[in-house]
Amino acid sequence: MKAIVKARAEPGLKIQDAPDPAPPGPGEALIRIRAGSICGTDLHIHKWDAWAQSRIRPPQIIGHEIAGDIVELGEGVEGYEKGQTVSVEGHIVCGRCPLCRTGQAHICPRMEIIGIDRDGGFAEYIKVPASNLWKIDAGIPIEVAALHDALGNAFHATLLHPVAGKSVLVLGCGPIGLLSCAIARASGAERVFATDVNPRRLDIAERMGADVRIDASKQDPVRVVREATESIGADVVLEMSGAPSAIQQGLAAVRNGGEVRLLGLPAHDVPIALARDIIFKGITIHGILGRRMYETWYQMRAFLRAGRIDVSPVITHRLPYQDVDKGFAALGEGTAGKVVLRFDA
Amino acid sequence: MKAIVKARAEPGLKIQDAPDPAPPGPGEALIRIRAGSICGTDLHIHKWDAWAQSRIRPPQIIGHEIAGDIVELGEGVEGYEKGQTVSVEGHIVCGRCPLCRTGQAHICPRMEIIGIDRDGGFAEYIKVPASNLWKIDAGIPIEVAALHDALGNAFHATLLHPVAGKSVLVLGCGPIGLLSCAIARASGAERVFATDVNPRRLDIAERMGADVRIDASKQDPVRVVREATESIGADVVLEMSGAPSAIQQGLAAVRNGGEVRLLGLPAHDVPIALARDIIFKGITIHGILGRRMYETWYQMRAFLRAGRIDVSPVITHRLPYQDVDKGFAALGEGTAGKVVLRFDA
Amino acid sequence: MKAIVKARAEPGLKIQDAPDPAPPGPGEALIRIRAGSICGTDLHIHKWDAWAQSRIRPPQIIGHEIAGDIVELGEGVEGYEKGQTVSVEGHIVCGRCPLCRTGQAHICPRMEIIGIDRDGGFAEYIKVPASNLWKIDAGIPIEVAALHDALGNAFHATLLHPVAGKSVLVLGCGPIGLLSCAIARASGAERVFATDVNPRRLDIAERMGADVRIDASKQDPVRVVREATESIGADVVLEMSGAPSAIQQGLAAVRNGGEVRLLGLPAHDVPIALARDIIFKGITIHGILGRRMYETWYQMRAFLRAGRIDVSPVITHRLPYQDVDKGFAALGEGTAGKVVLRFDA
Amino acid sequence: MKAIVKARAEPGLKIQDAPDPAPPGPGEALIRIRAGSICGTDLHIHKWDAWAQSRIRPPQIIGHEIAGDIVELGEGVEGYEKGQTVSVEGHIVCGRCPLCRTGQAHICPRMEIIGIDRDGGFAEYIKVPASNLWKIDAGIPIEVAALHDALGNAFHATLLHPVAGKSVLVLGCGPIGLLSCAIARASGAERVFATDVNPRRLDIAERMGADVRIDASKQDPVRVVREATESIGADVVLEMSGAPSAIQQGLAAVRNGGEVRLLGLPAHDVPIALARDIIFKGITIHGILGRRMYETWYQMRAFLRAGRIDVSPVITHRLPYQDVDKGFAALGEGTAGKVVLRFDA
Repeated sequence: MKAIVKARAEPGLKIQDAPDPAPPGPGEALIRIRAGSICGTDLHIHKWDAWAQSRIRPPQIIGHEIAGDIVELGEGVEGYEKGQTVSVEGHIVCGRCPLCRTGQAHICPRMEIIGIDRDGGFAEYIKVPASNLWKIDAGIPIEVAALHDALGNAFHATLLHPVAGKSVLVLGCGPIGLLSCAIARASGAERVFATDVNPRRLDIAERMGADVRIDASKQDPVRVVREATESIGADVVLEMSGAPSAIQQGLAAVRNGGEVRLLGLPAHDVPIALARDIIFKGITIHGILGRRMYETWYQMRAFLRAGRIDVSPVITHRLPYQDVDKGFAALGEGTAGKVVLRFDA
Repeated sequence: MKAIVKARAEPGLKIQDAPDPAPPGPGEALIRIRAGSICGTDLHIHKWDAWAQSRIRPPQIIGHEIAGDIVELGEGVEGYEKGQTVSVEGHIVCGRCPLCRTGQAHICPRMEIIGIDRDGGFAEYIKVPASNLWKIDAGIPIEVAALHDALGNAFHATLLHPVAGKSVLVLGCGPIGLLSCAIARASGAERVFATDVNPRRLDIAERMGADVRIDASKQDPVRVVREATESIGADVVLEMSGAPSAIQQGLAAVRNGGEVRLLGLPAHDVPIALARDIIFKGITIHGILGRRMYETWYQMRAFLRAGRIDVSPVITHRLPYQDVDKGFAALGEGTAGKVVLRFDA
Repeated sequence: MKAIVKARAEPGLKIQDAPDPAPPGPGEALIRIRAGSICGTDLHIHKWDAWAQSRIRPPQIIGHEIAGDIVELGEGVEGYEKGQTVSVEGHIVCGRCPLCRTGQAHICPRMEIIGIDRDGGFAEYIKVPASNLWKIDAGIPIEVAALHDALGNAFHATLLHPVAGKSVLVLGCGPIGLLSCAIARASGAERVFATDVNPRRLDIAERMGADVRIDASKQDPVRVVREATESIGADVVLEMSGAPSAIQQGLAAVRNGGEVRLLGLPAHDVPIALARDIIFKGITIHGILGRRMYETWYQMRAFLRAGRIDVSPVITHRLPYQDVDKGFAALGEGTAGKVVLRFDA
Repeated sequence: MKAIVKARAEPGLKIQDAPDPAPPGPGEALIRIRAGSICGTDLHIHKWDAWAQSRIRPPQIIGHEIAGDIVELGEGVEGYEKGQTVSVEGHIVCGRCPLCRTGQAHICPRMEIIGIDRDGGFAEYIKVPASNLWKIDAGIPIEVAALHDALGNAFHATLLHPVAGKSVLVLGCGPIGLLSCAIARASGAERVFATDVNPRRLDIAERMGADVRIDASKQDPVRVVREATESIGADVVLEMSGAPSAIQQGLAAVRNGGEVRLLGLPAHDVPIALARDIIFKGITIHGILGRRMYETWYQMRAFLRAGRIDVSPVITHRLPYQDVDKGFAALGEGTAGKVVLRFDA
């Protein structure tokens, strides 16, 4: 089969032949991939930065935001059938540790992530545990199915605790930040503030439901939030950028007793004024990883079924997988939202 | 001053002269009433039913859903000024018991309700503790200000725990049920089912945001919900009618592990299949009284400020207080939503 | 193999030969039973009461509180080995429904309970899904291992929400009630009130950690609790009896805003004063079924490892399985706590 | 009256005459102080370090951990009487802001702390709002009454979320850490790990209920915790030291999905590996300030009434207030637990 591969320990990716997956064993499923969406993580792997060098062992097929159709089911798999369109939870967990057995599988210490710790799904086929499948409703475009993993990050962060009637500050309008704007707005947030330094992204943020756009290159987000909230601050901060400056803004802009949910990954340690910003303010900080397995997926299905959010403004590029280099180029320029590759065209 | 009074232990109400309130003492405020909204409780008092006979001691001014302007402030009251438009939390609490001191004042055992346990606010003036005042934003119509108490019941019930991505069954489309439909929809509920036996109320329910209308005189709500949820049932049930049949429907329609929130007051004991409907299903039942003091009020302000809900379809009658009998008549016929009396016309 | 069997649709049980289980398939385990503890449910089956007649299809092996050693593992089972002593979660769940996939498997609508909906474990062997195994630490007596299922009911009910610093009323001192007294006390409850009509059970309750014993045949539990709590009432009520009178006492004795957790199964509908006892008091009622899979099991392990509770006073009879009739007789007289049958003697 | 005063902007404290408080106004109470306990904050003020210089405006009476008897009540104060022994919540809050009105008064932005932002209670008398009084049960020693403020910090941190059945790591065995050991143990923690570099403090920790003592000068707390928890880590970390090294240990030792509760105040920014230690692990961090008003106080009362904890090992020095210098010297040497000054001897 054809696959997008990190072939060697160096920048770049190659489209090349890879062995077809073996037939699915007990509890497994073989998927014919139809679409894959490029994640920020894939960018790191493409660039071959320090993180990628420490984690990825080439040659490896990349890609974890994927959707396709079931072509074969292993022994004992119930509830699915051939031809069913599915998305895939990319965290393969052990299923036996205390975290897996108590509803916290998304942070299983033995977790492997497809496309990172094992071969991924930017290929014609992938074999995964059937427990990681997620049925896609008829009527959901395959591009939307492909980005369920990223959409799930946004749902996990935004709905961790209720936002109804609350002011929400979204720091960073990459795809996950943009999706969070829509989710927060559709979930009754009083006001959604969105920051970015890119005006085009702020345009999309407004289309997604942000009430207040803040160009962080020109305005001070802390000041804007304080002025708009009678000096109280934001109830909930969603940190989606990983930028140290944004993290500091989030800690300064959140109200006493508020919540900061961290999803963006800073590359280095960040100095934090624990006494002033966390203890004296009595705030809570949550680290957000992956998607609750599978509460988050049911939430996604509910919002999509009911039409409560429209994710399409986030998808800026639809390309055949042969144009993968174009996709990475668009992302590298910082102007793209989501780039979806088609493997079935 | 003029007031609407339960003058004697018999059906009916009278408009009559009542003594002006004494000047406000330390921590008190005197309000000039501009609007009052008739509650179901007021109907019971008007009819002089068994409950009213057991609780009300005539002569007494009735009315607790009120709004008006501050005309005088007692010693030590800070943060308010004359002329400020306010609504009033109708639960006067002791402030010193364990419940009051731990954020549960709305169920203070020594609570007195204005218009029930002491003189109410269907009058030209009322004196209340300043801690029970709630500032009304400029731009909020006085009729909406007057029904904050009822709107707060709906917020308390609907937002007790998050409804985002959940199916919500609202049993009974009186004013509080109707308001709950709007709140649930604006807070991201996947689907709002609304039941009533009155088609006009179901019409309003749809305008308020209900996704599925169920005429309980013709359809079985349990069956409708089951069919629409792949036999799982509703995640959250809001029981707003007090009708034993609706309570049974709620218990049958809620999914395993779901929540039933009871607000409607049944007149008599209701036989409950505790084993089948509560224990084997592992559900949770919440009794809902009043409004969280004052979380609920901040939620109301947030939704109203942001324009997330429109309560106006619920207000069907606007009358001068001299027409109070017309208001009660409309309510008695079951066709009215909220009847708001004006005291400032 | 030998097994204790409901052989025909009539009262009583028989020890008789049953077919050995087939070898374990993929994901299954074969257990050699060493001990089984008799549950109240087994009593219903023994008596052949209305509930048993409606649910049990003879011939069927009974028993679900069991422990033994692994003798064979099916394909793909990891993390276990032959000879490992295990207890068994008796709820066999589908693993695929929304409840199973969101951490609520204990109320899976397709659940089968061993010994009720399928052959049970009062036998020399049983075959179960490996996911239902629970490793027993060395040093835990096999009788204690056998009653993990019941102990888990007590943990589920008692630790649903924190009891530290709270007053807890345990209604009914059968084995689960007694175990709950110990768990509540060890978890920092301010005061544990225990009711029963049997003085010997109240003696055990005191040994288990109850602070206040209430003989419900002579004292009014509501009055005792009110007097001891400055008229406030109990913070948490654990209803372990299923008796309508106790349920009423629990609703009356719980404080405004408190919690009633229902585990005991009433045989018939119970009339409830929903307005007076639930809504005006703003209380919460929880139906408790089974054990959280597997949070509850980890809690049990933690308490047993740390020696925070001693369950031995609850075990009053240790018998070879051949004496099963003696065991049921002792339970029928209401004087026994837990009766544990040994299958390995 | 006599008072302990930061007289000038320089190190040290003076016992000197101060004006008697004015008579209590409406809602106020005058207390005759009997005992005061020295807090770490008082040490900073005594030393006149950078923090003290930035916050304290001499001349000012210090001290906020206090207890005494009511000698006079202002107008409108109900529920108290002269002679009643009380402790005092040291956070004076506005009562009107959104935080105060929603059960989060302990982080009111307008809060003033007695002995820091206004005159304190190391004096013969203090006047405080009656809403800040806390009645002390007969039988509670006045020294214990005096340290309710510190004990409340420990309760707030330890019981924020349940610890029953959980492993708890207490970093730093100053008085609040020591008290937390006792509270965690009495609340059903599976295992309490306690770290310090002072063997005498670790001795007291064991007396307070710590299961595992860790001398952080000789052992690696992270390694000890990992080895004792099958490499999983601690469920809950209570950071009581403010030392950057301990904070790092806490983040490393907490399990995926666990909680770190920060109470100790670091003097400077601390570099945090947000991605590795918070986001990938999916943990939660809570800033802990003061005491929940007044949930924490009810918890204290419950534990003390029931005798679930014994705080006496923490009190190492009992001195007349004239010996205040001896008390600070003992604390400066790092060998003292709590030093309680008597003002009534």
